[in-house]
Amino acid sequence: MLTIATAVASPINNQIHLLMPHTGSAGHKHSNLNCLSWRLAVETNNLKDWTQVPKSCVDYVGHYMLGKQYRDDCEYIFAEAYEYAKGLNLTGDGKDVWVLDIDETTLSNVPYYAREDIAFGYYLYNSTSFDEWVVTAAAPAVPGSVKLYKQLIKLEFKIVFLTGTRQPFLEPRIKNLKEVGFTQWEKLILKGESDHESAVVYKSSKRKELEEAGYRIRGNMGDQWSDLIGTNTGDRTFKLPDPMYYIA
Amino acid sequence: MLTIATAVASPINNQIHLLMPHTGSAGHKHSNLNCLSWRLAVETNNLKDWTQVPKSCVDYVGHYMLGKQYRDDCEYIFAEAYEYAKGLNLTGDGKDVWVLDIDETTLSNVPYYAREDIAFGYYLYNSTSFDEWVVTAAAPAVPGSVKLYKQLIKLEFKIVFLTGTRQPFLEPRIKNLKEVGFTQWEKLILKGESDHESAVVYKSSKRKELEEAGYRIRGNMGDQWSDLIGTNTGDRTFKLPDPMYYIA
Repeated sequence: MLTIATAVASPINNQIHLLMPHTGSAGHKHSNLNCLSWRLAVETNNLKDWTQVPKSCVDYVGHYMLGKQYRDDCEYIFAEAYEYAKGLNLTGDGKDVWVLDIDETTLSNVPYYAREDIAFGYYLYNSTSFDEWVVTAAAPAVPGSVKLYKQLIKLEFKIVFLTGTRQPFLEPRIKNLKEVGFTQWEKLILKGESDHESAVVYKSSKRKELEEAGYRIRGNMGDQWSDLIGTNTGDRTFKLPDPMYYIA
Repeated sequence: MLTIATAVASPINNQIHLLMPHTGSAGHKHSNLNCLSWRLAVETNNLKDWTQVPKSCVDYVGHYMLGKQYRDDCEYIFAEAYEYAKGLNLTGDGKDVWVLDIDETTLSNVPYYAREDIAFGYYLYNSTSFDEWVVTAAAPAVPGSVKLYKQLIKLEFKIVFLTGTRQPFLEPRIKNLKEVGFTQWEKLILKGESDHESAVVYKSSKRKELEEAGYRIRGNMGDQWSDLIGTNTGDRTFKLPDPMYYIA
């Protein structure tokens, strides 16, 4: 997608097929894994604690993430979220909030994951190179996310960004959010120095704090099930697709 | 699939495309709905309380349910469930149970749903015709379910079938289960006369009773999210695909 390619530091060279050839002539064995089945199992939370995209599914995941289906999948979920949101009665006290995760929910790291040394999640997570990418503040918006965001603002929801990003990256994150169209929020919650729990525990505790402060979580969106399960999950959750990585 | 077709009372006439033509020449408008996005939203529990498969997705759902992808999706999940199950330590006291839903988890109603008057869930649920189908006890097994069942028995798990089927259908259900290969179980729990709650409340309360009786729910599988959420959900859940209907 051109809009993604223009945001890439190291460009995507249309070389998805060259990343790791695994067809017959060299004697490699084809995997029997059905990559659509693998992705469905990931998205339904049947697979847990996986650390890498299976080698035989790297091409599939790459084509999915760069292609029309991923965009359609995201846009459809944001559209359904709006259908739900516009049917809610807000009390007008400014306490109705909508919780949004950042990575792969509002900001897309596809340009980073498309790099040959990342290969859409085939290589193990590299915090050094990922942090360098975050500092560039060059992530595009996830397809459909800015549209819903603007609709929610118009409906007078308060927006809470709740992310596993750590506090030292606050400034590039703010810059990146604003540049793609997320211009205001009630709270932007990043992980502090002392937050070392799993994502599900960390995010549950932050949502609990929100509710204890009188906020009502009417909607909650994330690309990881750890954004959506645990406690204080909100009135309704929406799972965005992400076949590139798993966070517990 | 031949194995399904042979079990059908009213045969599938290869007429999926004829069910409801909606292509250009008659002036019908094509829907913009991406049926893969719709199915993903269904499987991830983003869509709730839907009552019919969208008209423009009937062909898609029919082809999916009758084709290789559905079989692969099911078999992959059962295989992953076995990978998990065989890694567990059982205490040997006969209290480690595996909870299995019936419809679209162990017994397949695809022959019924493929009928022209059902159209893979396009027409609203018809309890009369569905009950008639249940009484025939002619449902095939969901692909991969008998294999996992036998593996679980070998690992010495106790099997608990927990279904929304009502008590008057106990005998045809037993007959059907046994005929396709589910020959023994610790408990077979059907809905009683007084059970009028939603599936999520009913199934949660039955699982609570199991745990109060000293059973440990090590695995829990169903095609509906209402099988897998609520309380006492078990150590791990597995969601089977089902784009044909929704049960709250």
